[in-house]
Amino acid sequence: MCGVLPLWAASGGDGVSEKPRFEGWACPLPLRNYPTVVLGHGSGGQMMADLIRHLFVPELGNELLGQMADSTVIDLEGARLAFTTDSYVVSPLFFPGGDIGELAVNGTVNDLAMSGATPLFLSAAFILEEGLPMETLARVAESARRACEAAGVRVVAGDTKVVNRGHGDGLYLSMAGLGVVPEGIGIGPERARPGDAVLVNGPIGDHGMAILSVREGLEFEAAIESDTAPLNGLVGAMLVASREIHCLRDLTRGGLAAALNELASASKVGVEFEEASVPVRPAVRAACEMLGFDPLYVANEGKLVCFVPEGSAEAVLGAMRAHALGAEARRIGTVVAGHPGQVVARTGIGGSRLVDLPAGELLPRIC
Amino acid sequence: MCGVLPLWAASGGDGVSEKPRFEGWACPLPLRNYPTVVLGHGSGGQMMADLIRHLFVPELGNELLGQMADSTVIDLEGARLAFTTDSYVVSPLFFPGGDIGELAVNGTVNDLAMSGATPLFLSAAFILEEGLPMETLARVAESARRACEAAGVRVVAGDTKVVNRGHGDGLYLSMAGLGVVPEGIGIGPERARPGDAVLVNGPIGDHGMAILSVREGLEFEAAIESDTAPLNGLVGAMLVASREIHCLRDLTRGGLAAALNELASASKVGVEFEEASVPVRPAVRAACEMLGFDPLYVANEGKLVCFVPEGSAEAVLGAMRAHALGAEARRIGTVVAGHPGQVVARTGIGGSRLVDLPAGELLPRIC
Repeated sequence: MCGVLPLWAASGGDGVSEKPRFEGWACPLPLRNYPTVVLGHGSGGQMMADLIRHLFVPELGNELLGQMADSTVIDLEGARLAFTTDSYVVSPLFFPGGDIGELAVNGTVNDLAMSGATPLFLSAAFILEEGLPMETLARVAESARRACEAAGVRVVAGDTKVVNRGHGDGLYLSMAGLGVVPEGIGIGPERARPGDAVLVNGPIGDHGMAILSVREGLEFEAAIESDTAPLNGLVGAMLVASREIHCLRDLTRGGLAAALNELASASKVGVEFEEASVPVRPAVRAACEMLGFDPLYVANEGKLVCFVPEGSAEAVLGAMRAHALGAEARRIGTVVAGHPGQVVARTGIGGSRLVDLPAGELLPRIC
Repeated sequence: MCGVLPLWAASGGDGVSEKPRFEGWACPLPLRNYPTVVLGHGSGGQMMADLIRHLFVPELGNELLGQMADSTVIDLEGARLAFTTDSYVVSPLFFPGGDIGELAVNGTVNDLAMSGATPLFLSAAFILEEGLPMETLARVAESARRACEAAGVRVVAGDTKVVNRGHGDGLYLSMAGLGVVPEGIGIGPERARPGDAVLVNGPIGDHGMAILSVREGLEFEAAIESDTAPLNGLVGAMLVASREIHCLRDLTRGGLAAALNELASASKVGVEFEEASVPVRPAVRAACEMLGFDPLYVANEGKLVCFVPEGSAEAVLGAMRAHALGAEARRIGTVVAGHPGQVVARTGIGGSRLVDLPAGELLPRIC
């Protein structure tokens, strides 16, 4: 990895005195020394991690925010709650396989499910652009309702703001979610252990390539649709099979590569996986090859990775395959004690390569 | 009041068959029949109420969302939680007396406090515009931290999205908040009863006129600063004086007029107040007169109205006056059984006037 560089130089932060460190891996990336926000700061990669580490954590950090999980688990009045938030700024608002309303509900539900929580309540804060057709807003609200019904959650708090024409891209939707973590569940990004099996619930890259295809007007031989789906039902079935699950992560911005890196880093373990065992649909693989994308880094909205002790791996994999959203689940690799914080792919020809956290921008405005 | 008209005609909603009703009060307003979103839909007035009633509630409504309170009270695992969300799109980001970071924290804290809850946890979802100076973001984060410390809350979940240059106005900040409602507290917008005293905690109109002055480059004789402040401490002191408080509402978009109308409507009671007894700073009154604004409709970010039974009114007023944020608290009126849903001001010359919910746009992007 590149040395962690100060996020910005001119603003008087204590990062100013920090010298760039160039030891370690060769670094083909430009220095991450930005005086202004760029699209890459929202991409789920190293630049966003730097922004969080150097700007948000020093100001707003605390041990709960520091969980760095998809949702934060809070002990409150004897209950264990999971709490999460995400804004959705996807462009376009409607895309093959979904829209911003469904995406927001599913994404929030999934962040709760990744803590093993039962998602219950959502809040919805709409930022509307003056001139947005009412019919568009109605379609988004209807789609959000259907997604709530499918996931078994309710919107219980809301807000509406309107910004001037020419700002805001039609609509942005910020959601927060609240769920309850059942007793006996101990899932967290820092809980991976060497020997854990690494499972995914199906082929990766669909959402990102669906967005790209509609945004760029590309037509592929087979239509690519977003995989947006609520994963709480699948996670519930997995937890029935085994309460030993150590880690869950949905494969959103930054894709499988980012999720594996974040878990490896939080748990101070290594991850190794067989590149050939990672499921990718032929149409997605073809589109990625044509456009020079690596499917490992492409966003998903209905996929997760699960780290579970070897002894429970078959039971969990069986439960996944018995569920509609895990029919194509596979074991792709193993957690190892070596190279802590790093993710290594075994390639088809017997070699291996480091799969790093993406640096910055792959595809903006994906969710 | 004007008959409630269908929100839009062309989108196939069931509102299409609804005939406008013109009975009742004379209606000087244009028909609220909008095929697209306009700024007024985010203003806290009748247009926003129509949008919520005709679009969001039919899709997303449930009995919890239907509480229509500043925060929603949920019974969960034996705890009574308050949950709320708001997006902040204030323009400019920095204004006399505050900035978007402080405003967002205080606003979220206040929505929780208006349910009598002890605010505990916030989530923060930043939507950043490409090109935003890092230093601006750092200043906002620092200001949010200070506001969190002042209010005794923590940010425990976050998200960062970046949108393309030219969209998003620098930054939008969506927050959700979570608090605990102590036992024995039963505050809600539907709980007002005839005979309740109506109290406010100080002079109104400061926030709105502060935003307007900086936005329009106006200079008044005395500087007008936003009143943004966390009201949870004040509310805590009021609840020590009496647990009989029926209603609390912070006087944000739509000002005192909107808050009184919402409470009158939810409780099916009338409200009468003495116009001369409503505190307004001379500089704010002068600015309002010059610009043709009615201070009753101007937004505040550190003011509340309280409905409390007559027998507890003096105790609560005393507790307010003993607190720094209620030093200029006053009783301004009374809840009555007559004219349910309507708010009437007694004017200086012995007359009275109906103080209706504002129709649409007074001053956009105020919070």
